[in-house]
Amino acid sequence: MKKNVLIIGAGGVAQVVAHKCAQHNDVLGDIHIASRTLDKCQALVDSVREKGSLKTAGELQAHALDALDVEATKALIAKTESQLVINVGSAFINMSVLQACIDTGAAYLDTAIHEDPAKICETPPWYANYEWKRRELCEQNGITAILGVGFDPGVVNAYASVAYNEYFDSVDSIDIIDINAGSHGKYFATNFDPEINFREFTGQVWSWQNSQWTSNQMFEVKRTDDLPVVGSQTSYMTGHDEVHSLSQNLKVPNVRFWMGFGEHYINVFTVLKNLGLLSEQPVTTAEGLEVIPLKVVKAVLPDPSSLAPDYSGKTCIGDVVKGKKDGKDKEVFIYNVADHAEAYAEVGSQGISYTAGVPPVAAAILIANGAWDVQKMVNVEELDAKPFINLLNEMGLPTRIKDEQGDRALSF
Amino acid sequence: MKKNVLIIGAGGVAQVVAHKCAQHNDVLGDIHIASRTLDKCQALVDSVREKGSLKTAGELQAHALDALDVEATKALIAKTESQLVINVGSAFINMSVLQACIDTGAAYLDTAIHEDPAKICETPPWYANYEWKRRELCEQNGITAILGVGFDPGVVNAYASVAYNEYFDSVDSIDIIDINAGSHGKYFATNFDPEINFREFTGQVWSWQNSQWTSNQMFEVKRTDDLPVVGSQTSYMTGHDEVHSLSQNLKVPNVRFWMGFGEHYINVFTVLKNLGLLSEQPVTTAEGLEVIPLKVVKAVLPDPSSLAPDYSGKTCIGDVVKGKKDGKDKEVFIYNVADHAEAYAEVGSQGISYTAGVPPVAAAILIANGAWDVQKMVNVEELDAKPFINLLNEMGLPTRIKDEQGDRALSF
Repeated sequence: MKKNVLIIGAGGVAQVVAHKCAQHNDVLGDIHIASRTLDKCQALVDSVREKGSLKTAGELQAHALDALDVEATKALIAKTESQLVINVGSAFINMSVLQACIDTGAAYLDTAIHEDPAKICETPPWYANYEWKRRELCEQNGITAILGVGFDPGVVNAYASVAYNEYFDSVDSIDIIDINAGSHGKYFATNFDPEINFREFTGQVWSWQNSQWTSNQMFEVKRTDDLPVVGSQTSYMTGHDEVHSLSQNLKVPNVRFWMGFGEHYINVFTVLKNLGLLSEQPVTTAEGLEVIPLKVVKAVLPDPSSLAPDYSGKTCIGDVVKGKKDGKDKEVFIYNVADHAEAYAEVGSQGISYTAGVPPVAAAILIANGAWDVQKMVNVEELDAKPFINLLNEMGLPTRIKDEQGDRALSF
Repeated sequence: MKKNVLIIGAGGVAQVVAHKCAQHNDVLGDIHIASRTLDKCQALVDSVREKGSLKTAGELQAHALDALDVEATKALIAKTESQLVINVGSAFINMSVLQACIDTGAAYLDTAIHEDPAKICETPPWYANYEWKRRELCEQNGITAILGVGFDPGVVNAYASVAYNEYFDSVDSIDIIDINAGSHGKYFATNFDPEINFREFTGQVWSWQNSQWTSNQMFEVKRTDDLPVVGSQTSYMTGHDEVHSLSQNLKVPNVRFWMGFGEHYINVFTVLKNLGLLSEQPVTTAEGLEVIPLKVVKAVLPDPSSLAPDYSGKTCIGDVVKGKKDGKDKEVFIYNVADHAEAYAEVGSQGISYTAGVPPVAAAILIANGAWDVQKMVNVEELDAKPFINLLNEMGLPTRIKDEQGDRALSF
């Protein structure tokens, strides 16, 4: 029974994680929240207390931490006696937080792949560039490290493995579709940190097709689907974390990720990109000031966490899986629909943060109760998906399946 | 006979001014070029020498100068014995250069209105906020100061006064139309310093209508004209210098300025403006760096002077003037068409810089030969337009007129 959670990060996803940990603190024990800015952590603590999210009386504390400092992170893990570390900070800190977990024996969970601030669109599979280099070390030390356990990556990996193991004899393609049919009412905003959000789209798009890596340009390939609840939606092939693990862990010749974008988003993105304003390479102003354009764009855009109060509409994220069953063609769509306003009412965050923040808490509970305490490094598709999907059904992210038998709730 | 020219500025327009002064150095005497960056001045000197533009043997020198430093500017005027100062530097330096001219007795010429870096879209008439406050001082000291003697403002003011004095009994409207039908082949670029260029469009648009100041938003009001050479063109009502002097100096109830924009330009501009990236107010990045977004946009855009080699197509700039003559309605269009490639071949600059840079040299010649040495501060419509138009006909900017009698060259 692992206990006590250290949450690293204090953004919109961290807020969801904090509330959900609080709702399950009978299982998870003490809750500690750490990020560079103590005030932001304290705001999460205050939010949890205001909404009365703590299930039982227990510790809930804010801490200032530079998570790139491995020794400081180890010290905080030790001081707080945390056995579970949920890293929902910047994508640049994964490797240092993971090292702190390996050194202290704590379980490690994150929701997005490690990134080097100076690089975009590295060669696939991306996990092999960073996290997977620590696989042996985790196994030797009995460290449970669950990579990419947000919604996508994360829940969609579980959907892929459920389809692969339960519904097909052979799978030909997994197409993960991420649609945000909500509206934040601003001229333009990103739902995550703009710096991370834009980096997903600025370079090559890697997909796994015909059992090999294929490269396209962003917005080069699109599809339109008639989806449950959100209706007809156009999405674009995008490079994304889960393609890099699913392609290696499942025997499926085609794994692709598709993200929905409206024409307005694409227009703004295209203008910024073509002007060079999304560059992570510094430019020098006429006055001699060295500036990274992307950081200025981030500074002028709305803070993603500020969008939540006015966000309306729904998200639909799921896996279209095609293959053979009993000699016949088969197709299933396994998916979740989340509502922005409901998420805000429950935890004070919008639906995108909600879908990303609930799953790592479910995973932490599964580690705490032993079901997922595998004492090695894994991606989600390597774990038993059934208890995860069942727990998410109870925690606010219900799974549905649509196939030739209709559209229905999925549980095991 | 005033002699010796000090050119302040070293951008695309200064390049044209340098070449044109050189072509007329038998009249204008020594030529000195000064700006903050000596290398840029030296590049202009080299360009003039390479093209063999000097008409007769004579001085041609580069100087480093902070033109905001009045004493330093006075010292350079004295040292170079310049009696003519052509200010084609940043719009922020007008008042300090003008002061240096007043103190030394040199004639002053510029091509754009003074601006305060911290303000945009000041209350009209703009000239009254800065330059016109020195009118009395100029008159007392016998200083010839010709304001706004580029193409627009400048030549279009002369076109307005010619129409007003020669072709009408009463004028109802002057609509100045500025069309650049050329192509630079880049995704996006401004033809002038982006910082000045965008400031023209970011706030209110002031026009003089029904004998009063009227305010609109940028891109709110447009017109489409079938123009000579460049054909059907859409232009948008824009705030511009000449509206502010013509409205005060001529008895005309409607004075408006229209600038041509393609849909692509408007789209990029609209995205940048709505995101706050054209703001001259600083923002702070997540890392704590204070940055003015507009200066970063400037840093990522192509240097306007770099556009010249590949610029093709033509500009068409002129005045549509409507009114009464002998009791009947009358309309004339007085205009110039310039060619980007021809301008580059002659002086190494594109057509926009060419149209802006030739007129102040013509004006300097008219001061040198006495025709325009009025020993007071004036805007161009207050001067005799005929020798100016005649001289421009010879110097590469021929004037044409189109009315009920057809489309023909105009000279006096």
